[in-house]
Amino acid sequence: MRNLALPFLLLLASVLLLTFCTPKEESNVGLMEEVQNPELVSWNEGPTKQAIIDYVMDVTNPSSSNFIPVEDRIATFDNDGNLWSEQPAYFQLFFAIDRVKALASEHPEWSTQQPFKSVLENDMKTLSTFGEHGLLELVMASHTGMSTEEFEQIVIDWLETSRHPRFDRPFNELIYQPMLELLDYLRANEFKTFIVSGGGIEFMRPWVDEAYGIPSDQVVGSSIATEFDYNNGNPIIKRIPKIDFIDDKEGKPIGINRFIGKKPVFASGNSDGDLQMLQWTDSNKYKSFQLYLHHTDAEREWAYDKNSSIGRLDKGLEEALNKGWTVVDMKKDWKVIYPFEMK
Amino acid sequence: MRNLALPFLLLLASVLLLTFCTPKEESNVGLMEEVQNPELVSWNEGPTKQAIIDYVMDVTNPSSSNFIPVEDRIATFDNDGNLWSEQPAYFQLFFAIDRVKALASEHPEWSTQQPFKSVLENDMKTLSTFGEHGLLELVMASHTGMSTEEFEQIVIDWLETSRHPRFDRPFNELIYQPMLELLDYLRANEFKTFIVSGGGIEFMRPWVDEAYGIPSDQVVGSSIATEFDYNNGNPIIKRIPKIDFIDDKEGKPIGINRFIGKKPVFASGNSDGDLQMLQWTDSNKYKSFQLYLHHTDAEREWAYDKNSSIGRLDKGLEEALNKGWTVVDMKKDWKVIYPFEMK
Repeated sequence: MRNLALPFLLLLASVLLLTFCTPKEESNVGLMEEVQNPELVSWNEGPTKQAIIDYVMDVTNPSSSNFIPVEDRIATFDNDGNLWSEQPAYFQLFFAIDRVKALASEHPEWSTQQPFKSVLENDMKTLSTFGEHGLLELVMASHTGMSTEEFEQIVIDWLETSRHPRFDRPFNELIYQPMLELLDYLRANEFKTFIVSGGGIEFMRPWVDEAYGIPSDQVVGSSIATEFDYNNGNPIIKRIPKIDFIDDKEGKPIGINRFIGKKPVFASGNSDGDLQMLQWTDSNKYKSFQLYLHHTDAEREWAYDKNSSIGRLDKGLEEALNKGWTVVDMKKDWKVIYPFEMK
Repeated sequence: MRNLALPFLLLLASVLLLTFCTPKEESNVGLMEEVQNPELVSWNEGPTKQAIIDYVMDVTNPSSSNFIPVEDRIATFDNDGNLWSEQPAYFQLFFAIDRVKALASEHPEWSTQQPFKSVLENDMKTLSTFGEHGLLELVMASHTGMSTEEFEQIVIDWLETSRHPRFDRPFNELIYQPMLELLDYLRANEFKTFIVSGGGIEFMRPWVDEAYGIPSDQVVGSSIATEFDYNNGNPIIKRIPKIDFIDDKEGKPIGINRFIGKKPVFASGNSDGDLQMLQWTDSNKYKSFQLYLHHTDAEREWAYDKNSSIGRLDKGLEEALNKGWTVVDMKKDWKVIYPFEMK
């Protein structure tokens, strides 16, 4: 028996070592594959998904002539209608309307003064006649006059209490599952992902890290002016009623240059307001990728393009077809729209 | 022999497995220690170095009541006189002067027009009498009128050809070795490091990634206005002669809020122009750290504070003493100043 004990113990030791050694290596390899290729599970197989994968595989392959160094892998995403929905109106407009109503008791003059009167009377038809200038007045009245910290809390509270009229869910649940997977996929391949949106930068920052995994310093957006107030040793930054920057159309490449300082290699948008960002990206010396999201799914989301006042896609779609940019057909290319459909 | 062969093989197998298994674990542990504690080798032992280490060890310790989540570990650094030297004049002024000289043949009017006349005549004494307004004129004339890509190349070319008058080296070699180590140390402890400088954002971006390991989107600075030009399908961003933002004094917290969107927990500067940034950081809900670099070494670098027109440190030093902020005594705390002293 003694003669058999040693081999048995050694065998046991080997098995134990194999048990602790091999799975570790396997799981490392598994992990690496998973990190490099998180699956775009909500994207249907087809030319759109394939174009994305082909591009990423090509530019991250060190032996490819199209290889892009990690520090130049800049990817920019529009937000409204591109990472989350924007119908029946930009979600920030719902926020502004709710703020105007909340502040109405401090402003008795609003009951007779437009565009506030139509907001307080829920008269969206009249409100829409005031156009961009009217919306700007609502934003100025409802988004300024407080500190940046107070505004952040107001946004957080609003997201917790308000509901989308069609889906009866918090607005930040109406984010696109396939785009979340695309962001993950790009980051796993060492792209740095940014939001470049016409929406308010401080309206987005309180929630986009949790929603998209994009930290506050990787958010570019429209902004109102601010002032530093030492405030007797409790310094605050005050939001004042003056536009600082409109991050839309020509503003997008300007905002990208100002905040990021590099030309993107990957850009994604859904409206004519994103066209200049895609043109700017298309002029990159590296092989670049332009993605236009086309809203074609009236049943699960909305269908709109050139005749929509919100997120109009007209010239952009034409240029996408002319230049061979990739156009996502939401209805055809996406298995699900929102994360809550996965549950 | 057969009876011995099996145990021998098993023993061999065990030894092999141990060889491939154990060192891997050891090297992982070794790597982890190295990453978390890159040494501040150019910092002399003493209260300054100890204060930095104590702070970082405390706020990164998950069991500490002062623990800061990774996403809130924002560290901001002034550049001029804080990451690189700024004497006998801001290095960007040397650049502006060289640009004015290079452009002089296109501007015959400059030979009689101040402040250009004094630049072309190397009359620094007269130049200094024109104050900030004069410097601004030089910047506007020399930093605008080209595309952002052209400007980037001009900066790169200038760094390659120009030399600092005292050290006869490229300006970007006059960066502080101890600060490079501090940046590395903070990043190894998962702080995100930013530059927040009064200097031009596009004057810094072409070289700071290589110099400090800080990518272009983590640079906040002063900027001039820009315009997007589709340029018949070859889009450019043009630099136009108009100030967009001055990132100094009250501008620093405003710039931090605009670009980063979070209040720093660690801030480092060297002049009164950094005071508001340090005050802002000091008001963080998390335990924060304020570092003032005091230029005390006339032999190896320069000695200056409250009487200097460049990088004046007067009120800031007083507030640092009152509030117990950490003040680096360059002469006493730093073993070396520049990386080239290490060779």
